[in-house]
Amino acid sequence: MARPLGPVRLKKANPITIVIGGALCIFILYFILGPSGTDFSAARKAAAASHPLSPPTSAFRKSSKNGGKTKPPPVMRYNLNNVTITHNPVENRENVLILTPMARFYQEYWDNLMKLSYPHELITLGFILPKNKEGNAATSELQKQIAKTQTSGPEKARFNSIIILRQEFDPPISSQDEVERHKMQNQRARRAAMAKARNSLLFTTLGPAVSWVLWLDADIIETPPTLIQDLALHDKPLIAPNCFQRYYNTETKKMDERPYDFNNWQDSPTAQQLGEKMGPDEILLEGYQDMPTYRSLMAFMYKPDEDKHTEVPLDGVGGTALLVKADVHRDGAMFPAFPFYHLIETEGFAKMAKRLGWQATGLPNYKVYHYNE
Amino acid sequence: MARPLGPVRLKKANPITIVIGGALCIFILYFILGPSGTDFSAARKAAAASHPLSPPTSAFRKSSKNGGKTKPPPVMRYNLNNVTITHNPVENRENVLILTPMARFYQEYWDNLMKLSYPHELITLGFILPKNKEGNAATSELQKQIAKTQTSGPEKARFNSIIILRQEFDPPISSQDEVERHKMQNQRARRAAMAKARNSLLFTTLGPAVSWVLWLDADIIETPPTLIQDLALHDKPLIAPNCFQRYYNTETKKMDERPYDFNNWQDSPTAQQLGEKMGPDEILLEGYQDMPTYRSLMAFMYKPDEDKHTEVPLDGVGGTALLVKADVHRDGAMFPAFPFYHLIETEGFAKMAKRLGWQATGLPNYKVYHYNE
Repeated sequence: MARPLGPVRLKKANPITIVIGGALCIFILYFILGPSGTDFSAARKAAAASHPLSPPTSAFRKSSKNGGKTKPPPVMRYNLNNVTITHNPVENRENVLILTPMARFYQEYWDNLMKLSYPHELITLGFILPKNKEGNAATSELQKQIAKTQTSGPEKARFNSIIILRQEFDPPISSQDEVERHKMQNQRARRAAMAKARNSLLFTTLGPAVSWVLWLDADIIETPPTLIQDLALHDKPLIAPNCFQRYYNTETKKMDERPYDFNNWQDSPTAQQLGEKMGPDEILLEGYQDMPTYRSLMAFMYKPDEDKHTEVPLDGVGGTALLVKADVHRDGAMFPAFPFYHLIETEGFAKMAKRLGWQATGLPNYKVYHYNE
Repeated sequence: MARPLGPVRLKKANPITIVIGGALCIFILYFILGPSGTDFSAARKAAAASHPLSPPTSAFRKSSKNGGKTKPPPVMRYNLNNVTITHNPVENRENVLILTPMARFYQEYWDNLMKLSYPHELITLGFILPKNKEGNAATSELQKQIAKTQTSGPEKARFNSIIILRQEFDPPISSQDEVERHKMQNQRARRAAMAKARNSLLFTTLGPAVSWVLWLDADIIETPPTLIQDLALHDKPLIAPNCFQRYYNTETKKMDERPYDFNNWQDSPTAQQLGEKMGPDEILLEGYQDMPTYRSLMAFMYKPDEDKHTEVPLDGVGGTALLVKADVHRDGAMFPAFPFYHLIETEGFAKMAKRLGWQATGLPNYKVYHYNE
């Protein structure tokens, strides 16, 4: 996500005191809708007792409504033997959990999501939004689109389920202004908070039925419709496409594109030496001038004439778009909010996955596009 | 869990090649039962479409049974603002998730669990068992007890829900023989596998409604019935009671007790210096002769005359019994299966929690008891 040039080493200026406070403000909106015009209030009443991702409440215990008579017992069996993780997830009916931390709602993000050709009935969407003014506005926009899709849209377009989590804490940098966001001194606090948001979302939504987790940032507005199938085809534990950005080139007076996500990289001896000299609380950031790491950035590996399925091994990954086998997370791989081998958030995640025996892969010629502020 | 005397440094003899294979064999048994004699088969049929911990399946989509008519939509809202984490969890109706990795079934474990005075309707149980012969036997025993409790037992004794996960891989040391289990060279592989099992269990069961996670090993056979209330009263992010073991003292010819879990400790300068000299893949283990760490073990801090609520800060924790605020896990704290600051599994978890700003606490005078093989 870092845009400026040249990397930088950040000393632990502020210990991560972002009191995430723990308590999440969670608000789960779970729609699986029938034909339009259904009676919402009745359905809400009937289903209010529990939801499919939390331990059940007393839905099946004595109900005051039927005179204290206990309902018949639901005995549910679930066998993850049947939950495969393969290169052909459509045929094998594999569930995909798409997770998106969202600070702003972009209509283009939703429209692109809708165009994904992976069967929507196998897709669960999970969102986490900050509990501030901007987050409220985004939640409201998001809910409007969800209601439209899940109620009045064609049944085929409807997603299996949708979960919206609200964080109780403010993001450390409330402004979504790009310059402000990318300021070196803000990066560490911002990415630590983002790491905790990703973890909250992940730990709260990953059930036993999920085969794949697709991390997709809220500002990714253009991907091939076959994104999930294309990435899964490689059968890799972690796989990242190359994130670009379209812009208006004032010189050529034409639309052009440029590399955007600099967190997909291959390590360099220089970066490793820098790390060795660092204190345990210092982190390496990619994409800043003051300290060049000479890492090989996937952003610059794009070759227009080569196969879009060309693979490269990666040591660091970004979170703009990233397909992960659910078992990688189940083994414990998460997004460190603290320096982990001098890495943080998604880059730390790649390193942690590696420590668990899972290698990250990148597709330099497979492009997705980031919003241009 | 380590019993022998004196600590030891383990070189990375075998890289953790335990192919956890990822794919979990999950088998969820979810009972919330009405009066005995209920018609199981009908209930099973009715509820087979989904279960409360996974993303929903097509339960609410078009059903072939009713001629393609779509069922009314369940719209579910869930607000974690109402999910508090307080020192008075009973009054605040806080959900507790009790997680137990289980290799053998001990009747005494189940009997003790049944005696917990925390409202069972607020308790969800989660188990993970290896998919080998011993694991099959334990699963079978466990299911018998579950069926008895959830169907024919008094309604008050029934738990909110129960989840059983089966791991597809064999544990690295198949024998549950205590001597074999505690052999130094087996400890690293055993604890790495245990860490992955704990993570699988945690990532798969932690929903948005959970306030507290109680880690309780399958060989803990005696705790005060007020265990959860007593530990929660301290309002600490992580809190561990002191794990002892009853045994027959051949000298006094009487039953006696001795400290058991040596993983609850305060760090020492010696251990830190040892760590500094270690390679990144070496780990410190507690409780072995060859390398004394001079850490202060909570096991030896028990003072019979002092208040059982006396607190001490801890740097490493065991998993025999451990109450954790769910938000600690949601921030990303898990059980590293790789050396993390030269620590692994539960001890690494305490360090990771600390890196996230959460301090572990121990209660040296509050005792729970381990099975004596």
